[in-house]
Amino acid sequence: MSKNSVMPLILISNDDGINAPGLKCLVETIKSLGDLIVVAPDQPQSGMGHAITISKPLRVELVKKKNGCKWHTCSGTPADCIKLGTKIILKKLPDLVVSGINHGSNSSTNALYSGTLSAAMEGAIEGIPAIGFSYCDHSWSADMEVCRDIVKTITKKVLNKGLPAGTLLNVNIPNVNEKPLKGIKICRQANARWVEEFEERVDPSGKNYYWLKGNFKNFDKGQDTDEWALSHNYVSVVPLQYDLTAHHVISVINGWEL
Amino acid sequence: MSKNSVMPLILISNDDGINAPGLKCLVETIKSLGDLIVVAPDQPQSGMGHAITISKPLRVELVKKKNGCKWHTCSGTPADCIKLGTKIILKKLPDLVVSGINHGSNSSTNALYSGTLSAAMEGAIEGIPAIGFSYCDHSWSADMEVCRDIVKTITKKVLNKGLPAGTLLNVNIPNVNEKPLKGIKICRQANARWVEEFEERVDPSGKNYYWLKGNFKNFDKGQDTDEWALSHNYVSVVPLQYDLTAHHVISVINGWEL
Repeated sequence: MSKNSVMPLILISNDDGINAPGLKCLVETIKSLGDLIVVAPDQPQSGMGHAITISKPLRVELVKKKNGCKWHTCSGTPADCIKLGTKIILKKLPDLVVSGINHGSNSSTNALYSGTLSAAMEGAIEGIPAIGFSYCDHSWSADMEVCRDIVKTITKKVLNKGLPAGTLLNVNIPNVNEKPLKGIKICRQANARWVEEFEERVDPSGKNYYWLKGNFKNFDKGQDTDEWALSHNYVSVVPLQYDLTAHHVISVINGWEL
Repeated sequence: MSKNSVMPLILISNDDGINAPGLKCLVETIKSLGDLIVVAPDQPQSGMGHAITISKPLRVELVKKKNGCKWHTCSGTPADCIKLGTKIILKKLPDLVVSGINHGSNSSTNALYSGTLSAAMEGAIEGIPAIGFSYCDHSWSADMEVCRDIVKTITKKVLNKGLPAGTLLNVNIPNVNEKPLKGIKICRQANARWVEEFEERVDPSGKNYYWLKGNFKNFDKGQDTDEWALSHNYVSVVPLQYDLTAHHVISVINGWEL
Protein backbone atom coordinates (compact mmCIF):
# COMPACT_ATOMS: atom_id res chain seq x y z
CA MET A 1 0.00 0.00 0.00
CA SER A 2 2.82 2.43 0.84
CA LYS A 3 4.88 4.27 -1.75
CA ASN A 4 7.65 4.31 0.81
CA SER A 5 7.68 2.04 3.82
CA VAL A 6 9.02 4.82 6.06
CA MET A 7 6.00 7.04 5.45
CA PRO A 8 3.18 6.75 7.98
CA LEU A 9 -0.16 5.51 6.70
CA ILE A 10 -2.95 8.03 7.30
CA LEU A 11 -6.65 7.21 6.94
CA ILE A 12 -8.73 10.29 6.14
CA SER A 13 -12.48 10.79 6.52
CA ASN A 14 -15.05 13.48 7.25
CA ASP A 15 -18.79 13.94 7.65
CA ASP A 16 -19.46 16.56 4.99
CA GLY A 17 -18.90 13.93 2.29
CA ILE A 18 -16.42 13.18 -0.47
CA ASN A 19 -17.01 16.48 -2.31
CA ALA A 20 -16.47 18.83 0.63
CA PRO A 21 -13.82 21.53 0.10
CA GLY A 22 -12.63 20.93 3.67
CA LEU A 23 -11.65 17.36 2.79
CA LYS A 24 -9.71 18.57 -0.25
CA CYS A 25 -7.94 21.18 1.89
CA LEU A 26 -7.05 18.52 4.48
CA VAL A 27 -5.53 16.16 1.89
CA GLU A 28 -3.55 18.95 0.22
CA THR A 29 -2.28 20.16 3.58
CA ILE A 30 -0.98 16.87 4.99
CA LYS A 31 -0.11 14.92 1.81
CA SER A 32 3.62 15.44 2.44
CA LEU A 33 3.36 13.83 5.90
CA GLY A 34 2.43 10.30 4.87
CA ASP A 35 0.65 7.91 2.55
CA LEU A 36 -2.96 9.05 2.53
CA ILE A 37 -6.09 7.00 1.89
CA VAL A 38 -9.49 8.73 1.81
CA VAL A 39 -12.69 6.90 2.76
CA ALA A 40 -15.48 9.45 3.03
CA PRO A 41 -19.28 9.31 2.99
CA ASP A 42 -20.84 9.52 -0.47
CA GLN A 43 -23.19 12.20 0.84
CA PRO A 44 -23.17 14.71 3.70
CA GLN A 45 -23.58 13.08 7.13
CA SER A 46 -23.51 16.05 9.49
CA GLY A 47 -25.18 15.46 12.82
CA MET A 48 -24.88 11.70 12.48
CA GLY A 49 -23.15 11.34 15.84
CA HIS A 50 -21.63 7.93 16.33
CA ALA A 51 -24.20 6.20 14.11
CA ILE A 52 -23.26 2.92 12.43
CA THR A 53 -25.11 1.05 9.69
CA ILE A 54 -26.45 -2.30 10.80
CA SER A 55 -29.81 -2.61 9.01
CA LYS A 56 -28.49 -2.45 5.44
CA PRO A 57 -25.30 -3.40 3.66
CA LEU A 58 -22.56 -0.94 2.75
CA ARG A 59 -21.01 -0.05 -0.58
CA VAL A 60 -17.48 1.24 -1.03
CA GLU A 61 -16.09 2.60 -4.29
CA LEU A 62 -12.75 3.92 -5.50
CA VAL A 63 -13.77 7.18 -7.18
CA LYS A 64 -10.48 8.93 -8.01
CA LYS A 65 -6.73 9.09 -7.56
CA LYS A 66 -5.50 12.58 -6.82
CA ASN A 67 -2.63 14.10 -4.84
CA GLY A 68 -1.02 10.64 -4.78
CA CYS A 69 -4.00 9.39 -2.81
CA LYS A 70 -6.88 6.99 -3.48
CA TRP A 71 -10.27 8.53 -2.76
CA HIS A 72 -13.06 6.11 -1.82
CA THR A 73 -16.72 6.72 -1.10
CA CYS A 74 -18.68 4.72 1.44
CA SER A 75 -22.48 4.57 1.49
CA GLY A 76 -22.55 4.69 5.29
CA THR A 77 -21.74 6.98 8.18
CA PRO A 78 -18.34 8.45 9.16
CA ALA A 79 -17.88 5.66 11.74
CA ASP A 80 -18.64 3.10 9.00
CA CYS A 81 -15.95 4.75 6.82
CA ILE A 82 -13.28 4.02 9.42
CA LYS A 83 -14.47 0.45 10.00
CA LEU A 84 -14.54 -0.28 6.25
CA GLY A 85 -11.32 1.65 5.66
CA THR A 86 -9.32 -0.44 8.11
CA LYS A 87 -10.95 -3.83 7.46
CA ILE A 88 -11.71 -3.83 3.73
CA ILE A 89 -9.52 -1.22 2.06
CA LEU A 90 -6.31 -1.12 4.11
CA LYS A 91 -6.69 -4.57 5.66
CA LYS A 92 -4.50 -3.25 8.50
CA LEU A 93 -4.48 -0.41 11.00
CA PRO A 94 -3.19 2.94 9.77
CA ASP A 95 -0.76 4.98 11.88
CA LEU A 96 -3.20 7.86 12.17
CA VAL A 97 -6.84 8.75 11.49
CA VAL A 98 -7.58 12.36 10.52
CA SER A 99 -11.15 13.59 10.03
CA GLY A 100 -12.25 16.91 8.55
CA ILE A 101 -11.76 19.70 7.93
CA ASN A 102 -15.35 20.07 9.06
CA HIS A 103 -17.36 22.99 7.75
CA GLY A 104 -18.57 24.38 11.07
CA SER A 105 -17.58 24.22 14.72
CA ASN A 106 -17.47 20.98 16.68
CA SER A 107 -16.68 22.61 19.98
CA SER A 108 -18.08 21.58 23.38
CA THR A 109 -21.21 19.34 23.22
CA ASN A 110 -21.22 19.56 19.41
CA ALA A 111 -18.61 16.80 19.63
CA LEU A 112 -21.42 14.41 20.63
CA TYR A 113 -23.46 15.11 17.50
CA SER A 114 -20.51 15.34 15.16
CA GLY A 115 -19.88 12.77 12.46
CA THR A 116 -16.40 14.25 12.02
CA LEU A 117 -15.52 13.44 15.62
CA SER A 118 -17.16 10.02 15.46
CA ALA A 119 -14.81 9.02 12.63
CA ALA A 120 -11.86 10.09 14.78
CA MET A 121 -13.35 8.38 17.84
CA GLU A 122 -13.79 5.17 15.88
CA GLY A 123 -10.07 5.36 15.16
CA ALA A 124 -9.33 5.81 18.87
CA ILE A 125 -11.53 2.81 19.74
CA GLU A 126 -9.46 0.71 17.33
CA GLY A 127 -6.30 1.93 19.07
CA ILE A 128 -5.20 4.40 16.38
CA PRO A 129 -4.16 7.99 17.26
CA ALA A 130 -6.85 10.24 15.80
CA ILE A 131 -7.63 13.91 15.22
CA GLY A 132 -10.78 15.74 14.15
CA PHE A 133 -10.32 19.20 12.61
CA SER A 134 -13.14 21.72 12.29
CA TYR A 135 -13.26 25.29 10.97
CA CYS A 136 -15.80 27.60 12.55
CA ASP A 137 -17.50 28.61 9.30
CA HIS A 138 -20.33 26.55 7.80
CA SER A 139 -19.94 27.94 4.30
CA TRP A 140 -18.60 25.59 1.62
CA SER A 141 -16.91 28.61 0.07
CA ALA A 142 -15.09 29.50 3.30
CA ASP A 143 -11.43 30.34 2.85
CA MET A 144 -9.60 27.69 4.90
CA GLU A 145 -6.08 29.05 4.30
CA VAL A 146 -5.80 29.92 7.98
CA CYS A 147 -6.24 26.22 8.81
CA ARG A 148 -3.24 24.92 6.89
CA ASP A 149 -0.41 25.73 9.34
CA ILE A 150 -2.46 24.55 12.31
CA VAL A 151 -3.51 21.28 10.69
CA LYS A 152 0.02 20.49 9.57
CA THR A 153 1.63 21.39 12.92
CA ILE A 154 -0.79 19.34 14.99
CA THR A 155 -0.78 16.35 12.61
CA LYS A 156 3.04 16.26 12.66
CA LYS A 157 3.08 16.42 16.46
CA VAL A 158 0.61 13.54 16.80
CA LEU A 159 2.59 11.46 14.28
CA ASN A 160 5.73 12.10 16.33
CA LYS A 161 4.35 11.85 19.85
CA GLY A 162 1.32 9.56 19.53
CA LEU A 163 -1.62 9.96 21.89
CA PRO A 164 -2.40 8.24 25.20
CA ALA A 165 -4.52 5.10 24.70
CA GLY A 166 -8.21 5.70 24.31
CA THR A 167 -7.93 9.39 23.41
CA LEU A 168 -8.21 11.64 20.36
CA LEU A 169 -7.91 15.37 19.69
CA ASN A 170 -10.81 17.67 18.87
CA VAL A 171 -9.28 20.71 17.13
CA ASN A 172 -11.44 23.73 16.32
CA ILE A 173 -10.08 26.66 14.34
CA PRO A 174 -11.83 30.00 14.77
CA ASN A 175 -13.05 32.01 11.81
CA VAL A 176 -10.87 35.03 12.43
CA ASN A 177 -11.27 36.73 9.04
CA GLU A 178 -8.77 39.53 9.11
CA LYS A 179 -8.05 39.42 12.82
CA PRO A 180 -4.82 37.66 13.82
CA LEU A 181 -5.01 34.11 15.16
CA LYS A 182 -3.58 34.36 18.69
CA GLY A 183 -2.26 30.79 19.01
CA ILE A 184 -3.31 27.36 20.26
CA LYS A 185 -4.92 26.58 23.64
CA ILE A 186 -5.25 23.11 25.15
CA CYS A 187 -8.73 23.13 26.68
CA ARG A 188 -11.51 21.19 28.30
CA GLN A 189 -14.95 20.80 26.66
CA ALA A 190 -17.13 23.75 27.71
CA ASN A 191 -20.50 23.28 29.34
CA ALA A 192 -22.24 24.83 26.36
CA ARG A 193 -25.10 23.53 24.25
CA TRP A 194 -27.78 24.28 21.72
CA VAL A 195 -30.85 25.83 23.26
CA GLU A 196 -33.21 24.37 20.75
CA GLU A 197 -36.34 25.73 19.31
CA PHE A 198 -38.34 24.15 16.55
CA GLU A 199 -39.84 26.09 13.72
CA GLU A 200 -43.37 24.79 13.25
CA ARG A 201 -44.77 24.76 9.72
CA VAL A 202 -47.95 23.42 8.17
CA ASP A 203 -47.85 21.25 5.05
CA PRO A 204 -50.39 21.61 2.19
CA SER A 205 -52.57 18.91 3.75
CA GLY A 206 -52.76 20.82 7.04
CA LYS A 207 -50.36 18.69 9.09
CA ASN A 208 -47.61 20.20 11.25
CA TYR A 209 -43.93 19.54 10.78
CA TYR A 210 -40.90 20.87 12.61
CA TRP A 211 -37.47 22.15 11.62
CA LEU A 212 -34.79 21.87 14.29
CA LYS A 213 -33.06 25.18 14.91
CA GLY A 214 -31.46 26.79 17.90
CA ASN A 215 -29.05 29.16 19.53
CA PHE A 216 -25.76 27.97 20.89
CA LYS A 217 -25.32 29.06 24.49
CA ASN A 218 -22.25 28.88 26.71
CA PHE A 219 -23.18 28.18 30.35
CA ASP A 220 -19.53 27.92 31.37
CA LYS A 221 -17.60 30.85 32.87
CA GLY A 222 -14.25 29.03 32.78
CA GLN A 223 -11.35 30.46 30.81
CA ASP A 224 -9.93 26.98 30.22
CA THR A 225 -12.66 25.89 27.81
CA ASP A 226 -12.82 25.50 24.05
CA GLU A 227 -15.59 28.10 23.86
CA TRP A 228 -13.45 30.67 25.67
CA ALA A 229 -10.47 29.94 23.41
CA LEU A 230 -12.48 30.20 20.19
CA SER A 231 -14.20 33.42 21.22
CA HIS A 232 -10.77 34.92 21.96
CA ASN A 233 -9.31 33.93 18.56
CA TYR A 234 -7.36 30.91 19.77
CA VAL A 235 -7.42 27.47 18.18
CA SER A 236 -8.93 25.05 20.73
CA VAL A 237 -7.45 21.58 21.19
CA VAL A 238 -9.53 19.33 23.46
CA PRO A 239 -8.29 15.80 24.20
CA LEU A 240 -11.37 13.55 24.19
CA GLN A 241 -11.88 10.00 25.38
CA TYR A 242 -14.40 7.29 24.61
CA ASP A 243 -14.61 6.12 28.21
CA LEU A 244 -17.89 7.84 29.12
CA THR A 245 -17.78 6.67 32.77
CA ALA A 246 -18.48 9.46 35.26
CA HIS A 247 -15.90 8.00 37.65
CA HIS A 248 -16.63 10.61 40.34
CA VAL A 249 -20.24 9.40 40.53
CA ILE A 250 -19.50 5.71 41.19
CA SER A 251 -19.11 6.29 44.94
CA VAL A 252 -22.29 8.39 44.98
CA ILE A 253 -24.37 5.59 43.47
CA ASN A 254 -22.65 2.99 45.65
CA GLY A 255 -23.96 5.01 48.61
CA TRP A 256 -27.52 4.31 47.49
CA GLU A 257 -27.19 0.64 48.48
CA LEU A 258 -29.19 -0.62 45.54
CA MET B 1 -50.33 17.90 31.82
CA SER B 2 -50.29 16.11 35.21
CA LYS B 3 -53.14 14.05 36.55
CA ASN B 4 -51.81 14.94 39.96
CA SER B 5 -49.38 17.78 40.53
CA VAL B 6 -47.42 15.75 43.09
CA MET B 7 -46.55 13.05 40.53
CA PRO B 8 -43.21 13.46 38.75
CA LEU B 9 -43.34 13.93 34.99
CA ILE B 10 -41.38 11.21 33.15
CA LEU B 11 -40.46 11.41 29.46
CA ILE B 12 -39.98 7.96 27.91
CA SER B 13 -38.17 7.02 24.71
CA ASN B 14 -36.16 4.20 23.15
CA ASP B 15 -34.34 3.31 19.95
CA ASP B 16 -36.17 0.13 18.98
CA GLY B 17 -39.22 2.20 18.03
CA ILE B 18 -42.79 2.71 19.22
CA ASN B 19 -43.79 -0.94 18.73
CA ALA B 20 -40.95 -2.54 20.71
CA PRO B 21 -42.04 -4.89 23.51
CA GLY B 22 -39.29 -3.40 25.71
CA LEU B 23 -40.97 0.02 25.56
CA LYS B 24 -44.31 -1.51 26.55
CA CYS B 25 -42.63 -3.34 29.45
CA LEU B 26 -40.97 -0.09 30.61
CA VAL B 27 -44.24 1.85 30.63
CA GLU B 28 -46.12 -0.90 32.47
CA THR B 29 -43.32 -1.20 35.02
CA ILE B 30 -42.99 2.45 36.01
CA LYS B 31 -46.49 3.82 35.33
CA SER B 32 -47.23 3.97 39.06
CA LEU B 33 -44.20 6.20 39.67
CA GLY B 34 -45.28 9.28 37.72
CA ASP B 35 -47.10 10.87 34.83
CA LEU B 36 -45.61 9.25 31.74
CA ILE B 37 -45.33 10.64 28.22
CA VAL B 38 -43.89 8.46 25.44
CA VAL B 39 -42.10 9.99 22.43
CA ALA B 40 -40.44 7.17 20.48
CA PRO B 41 -39.08 6.76 16.96
CA ASP B 42 -41.67 5.63 14.40
CA GLN B 43 -39.23 2.97 13.23
CA PRO B 44 -36.25 1.14 14.75
CA GLN B 45 -33.18 3.36 15.21
CA SER B 46 -30.62 0.97 16.69
CA GLY B 47 -27.02 2.01 16.16
CA MET B 48 -27.99 5.62 15.53
CA GLY B 49 -25.58 6.91 18.19
CA HIS B 50 -26.19 10.53 19.05
CA ALA B 51 -27.50 11.38 15.57
CA ILE B 52 -29.86 14.34 15.19
CA THR B 53 -31.95 15.32 12.19
CA ILE B 54 -30.92 18.60 10.63
CA SER B 55 -31.36 18.05 6.89
CA LYS B 56 -35.09 17.35 6.91
CA PRO B 57 -38.06 18.36 9.05
CA LEU B 58 -39.55 16.17 11.75
CA ARG B 59 -43.06 14.84 12.23
CA VAL B 60 -44.60 14.00 15.57
CA GLU B 61 -47.91 12.22 16.03
CA LEU B 62 -50.09 11.17 18.97
CA VAL B 63 -50.77 7.52 18.14
CA LYS B 64 -52.51 6.13 21.23
CA LYS B 65 -53.46 6.58 24.86
CA LYS B 66 -52.77 3.55 26.97
CA ASN B 67 -51.82 2.88 30.58
CA GLY B 68 -52.84 6.49 31.37
CA CYS B 69 -50.08 7.67 29.05
CA LYS B 70 -49.97 9.44 25.67
CA TRP B 71 -47.82 7.62 23.12
CA HIS B 72 -46.27 9.75 20.37
CA THR B 73 -44.16 8.78 17.39
CA CYS B 74 -41.40 10.98 16.04
CA SER B 75 -39.96 10.59 12.53
CA GLY B 76 -36.42 11.25 13.78
CA THR B 77 -33.76 9.74 15.99
CA PRO B 78 -33.91 9.01 19.74
CA ALA B 79 -32.11 12.31 20.46
CA ASP B 80 -34.71 14.12 18.30
CA CYS B 81 -37.47 12.44 20.36
CA ILE B 82 -36.18 14.07 23.55
CA LYS B 83 -35.70 17.46 21.92
CA LEU B 84 -39.23 17.39 20.44
CA GLY B 85 -40.66 15.86 23.60
CA THR B 86 -39.48 18.67 25.83
CA LYS B 87 -39.95 21.59 23.41
CA ILE B 88 -43.10 20.71 21.45
CA ILE B 89 -45.07 18.14 23.43
CA LEU B 90 -44.37 18.93 27.09
CA LYS B 91 -43.29 22.52 26.54
CA LYS B 92 -41.30 22.15 29.79
CA LEU B 93 -38.61 19.92 31.25
CA PRO B 94 -39.76 16.61 32.71
CA ASP B 95 -38.44 15.42 36.08
CA LEU B 96 -36.85 12.35 34.53
CA VAL B 97 -36.00 10.83 31.15
CA VAL B 98 -36.10 7.03 30.89
CA SER B 99 -35.06 5.22 27.71
CA GLY B 100 -35.53 1.56 26.86
CA ILE B 101 -35.88 -1.20 27.69
CA ASN B 102 -33.46 -1.85 24.86
CA HIS B 103 -33.51 -5.23 23.16
CA GLY B 104 -29.81 -6.07 23.49
CA SER B 105 -26.85 -5.01 25.57
CA ASN B 106 -25.56 -1.44 25.67
CA SER B 107 -22.58 -2.24 27.86
CA SER B 108 -19.09 -0.72 27.51
CA THR B 109 -18.40 0.96 24.14
CA ASN B 110 -21.83 -0.05 22.87
CA ALA B 111 -23.01 3.04 24.78
CA LEU B 112 -21.40 5.17 22.05
CA TYR B 113 -23.41 3.56 19.25
CA SER B 114 -26.62 3.26 21.21
CA GLY B 115 -29.68 5.29 20.34
CA THR B 116 -31.18 4.26 23.70
CA LEU B 117 -28.32 5.90 25.56
CA SER B 118 -28.35 8.95 23.29
CA ALA B 119 -31.97 9.66 24.28
CA ALA B 120 -30.92 9.49 27.94
CA MET B 121 -27.80 11.56 27.26
CA GLU B 122 -29.90 14.22 25.51
CA GLY B 123 -31.91 14.41 28.73
CA ALA B 124 -28.73 14.84 30.76
CA ILE B 125 -27.53 17.61 28.41
CA GLU B 126 -30.79 19.43 29.06
CA GLY B 127 -30.21 19.07 32.80
CA ILE B 128 -32.74 16.28 33.41
CA PRO B 129 -31.83 13.14 35.41
CA ALA B 130 -31.83 10.27 32.92
CA ILE B 131 -31.55 6.49 32.75
CA GLY B 132 -31.10 4.04 29.88
CA PHE B 133 -32.19 0.45 30.50
CA SER B 134 -31.09 -2.47 28.32
CA TYR B 135 -31.74 -6.19 28.50
CA CYS B 136 -29.03 -8.48 27.19
CA ASP B 137 -31.25 -10.36 24.73
CA HIS B 138 -31.85 -9.08 21.20
CA SER B 139 -35.02 -11.09 20.65
CA TRP B 140 -38.30 -9.18 20.50
CA SER B 141 -39.93 -12.18 22.15
CA ALA B 142 -37.50 -12.12 25.09
CA ASP B 143 -39.17 -12.51 28.47
CA MET B 144 -38.35 -9.27 30.30
CA GLU B 145 -40.02 -10.20 33.60
CA VAL B 146 -36.60 -10.25 35.30
CA CYS B 147 -36.21 -6.55 34.42
CA ARG B 148 -39.26 -5.25 36.24
CA ASP B 149 -37.95 -5.15 39.83
CA ILE B 150 -34.63 -3.67 38.72
CA VAL B 151 -36.20 -0.99 36.53
CA LYS B 152 -38.64 0.04 39.23
CA THR B 153 -36.04 0.08 42.02
CA ILE B 154 -33.53 2.17 40.07
CA THR B 155 -36.13 4.55 38.66
CA LYS B 156 -37.52 5.19 42.17
CA LYS B 157 -34.02 5.83 43.52
CA VAL B 158 -33.21 8.34 40.78
CA LEU B 159 -36.55 10.11 41.31
CA ASN B 160 -35.76 10.36 45.03
CA LYS B 161 -32.05 11.13 44.89
CA GLY B 162 -31.54 12.85 41.53
CA LEU B 163 -28.22 12.55 39.72
CA PRO B 164 -25.14 14.78 39.77
CA ALA B 165 -25.26 17.43 37.01
CA GLY B 166 -24.16 16.23 33.60
CA THR B 167 -24.58 12.52 34.33
CA LEU B 168 -26.93 9.66 33.49
CA LEU B 169 -27.15 5.96 34.31
CA ASN B 170 -26.49 3.14 31.86
CA VAL B 171 -28.22 0.07 33.29
CA ASN B 172 -27.75 -3.34 31.66
CA ILE B 173 -29.64 -6.38 32.84
CA PRO B 174 -28.13 -9.78 32.07
CA ASN B 175 -30.09 -12.51 30.38
CA VAL B 176 -29.93 -14.99 33.21
CA ASN B 177 -32.65 -17.38 32.02
CA GLU B 178 -33.13 -19.73 34.93
CA LYS B 179 -30.00 -18.75 36.84
CA PRO B 180 -30.53 -16.37 39.78
CA LEU B 181 -29.71 -12.71 39.32
CA LYS B 182 -26.98 -12.01 41.88
CA GLY B 183 -27.66 -8.32 42.46
CA ILE B 184 -26.63 -4.88 41.22
CA LYS B 185 -23.04 -3.67 40.72
CA ILE B 186 -22.02 -0.03 40.21
CA CYS B 187 -19.32 -0.22 37.54
CA ARG B 188 -17.06 1.59 35.14
CA GLN B 189 -17.35 1.14 31.35
CA ALA B 190 -15.16 -1.81 30.31
CA ASN B 191 -12.48 -1.50 27.68
CA ALA B 192 -14.36 -3.85 25.38
CA ARG B 193 -15.41 -3.44 21.79
CA TRP B 194 -16.64 -5.06 18.62
CA VAL B 195 -13.88 -6.68 16.65
CA GLU B 196 -15.50 -6.13 13.33
CA GLU B 197 -15.47 -8.17 10.25
CA PHE B 198 -17.48 -7.49 7.17
CA GLU B 199 -19.24 -10.17 5.22
CA GLU B 200 -18.55 -9.51 1.55
CA ARG B 201 -21.27 -10.41 -0.94
CA VAL B 202 -21.71 -9.89 -4.66
CA ASP B 203 -24.92 -8.42 -6.07
CA PRO B 204 -26.56 -9.71 -9.30
CA SER B 205 -24.70 -7.09 -11.34
CA GLY B 206 -21.34 -8.27 -9.99
CA LYS B 207 -20.65 -5.46 -7.52
CA ASN B 208 -19.46 -6.09 -3.98
CA TYR B 209 -21.35 -5.02 -0.90
CA TYR B 210 -20.60 -5.50 2.79
CA TRP B 211 -22.60 -6.46 5.87
CA LEU B 212 -21.18 -5.26 9.18
CA LYS B 213 -20.79 -8.10 11.67
CA GLY B 214 -18.40 -8.81 14.46
CA ASN B 215 -17.48 -10.42 17.72
CA PHE B 216 -17.63 -8.53 20.95
CA LYS B 217 -14.33 -8.78 22.81
CA ASN B 218 -13.45 -7.71 26.34
CA PHE B 219 -9.86 -6.41 26.58
CA ASP B 220 -10.33 -5.42 30.22
CA LYS B 221 -9.24 -7.68 33.09
CA GLY B 222 -10.82 -5.45 35.77
CA GLN B 223 -13.50 -6.85 38.07
CA ASP B 224 -15.07 -3.39 38.45
CA THR B 225 -16.42 -3.22 34.89
CA ASP B 226 -19.88 -3.63 33.38
CA GLU B 227 -18.65 -6.60 31.34
CA TRP B 228 -17.41 -8.39 34.44
CA ALA B 229 -20.70 -7.74 36.25
CA LEU B 230 -22.87 -8.96 33.36
CA SER B 231 -20.83 -12.09 32.80
CA HIS B 232 -21.22 -12.89 36.52
CA ASN B 233 -25.02 -12.44 36.50
CA TYR B 234 -25.07 -8.99 38.08
CA VAL B 235 -26.99 -6.00 36.77
CA SER B 236 -24.43 -3.35 35.74
CA VAL B 237 -25.05 0.32 36.53
CA VAL B 238 -22.50 2.67 34.93
CA PRO B 239 -22.81 6.41 35.59
CA LEU B 240 -21.98 8.15 32.29
CA GLN B 241 -21.21 11.77 31.49
CA TYR B 242 -21.36 13.87 28.35
CA ASP B 243 -18.15 15.71 29.14
CA LEU B 244 -15.84 13.80 26.80
CA THR B 245 -12.70 15.68 27.90
CA ALA B 246 -9.77 13.40 28.68
CA HIS B 247 -8.74 15.67 31.57
CA HIS B 248 -5.63 13.61 32.35
CA VAL B 249 -4.29 14.31 28.85
CA ILE B 250 -4.48 18.12 28.99
CA SER B 251 -1.11 18.39 30.73
CA VAL B 252 0.42 15.90 28.26
CA ILE B 253 -0.61 18.01 25.26
CA ASN B 254 0.39 21.22 27.04
CA GLY B 255 3.87 19.71 27.26
CA TRP B 256 4.07 19.64 23.47
CA GLU B 257 4.34 23.45 23.37
CA LEU B 258 2.21 23.78 20.25
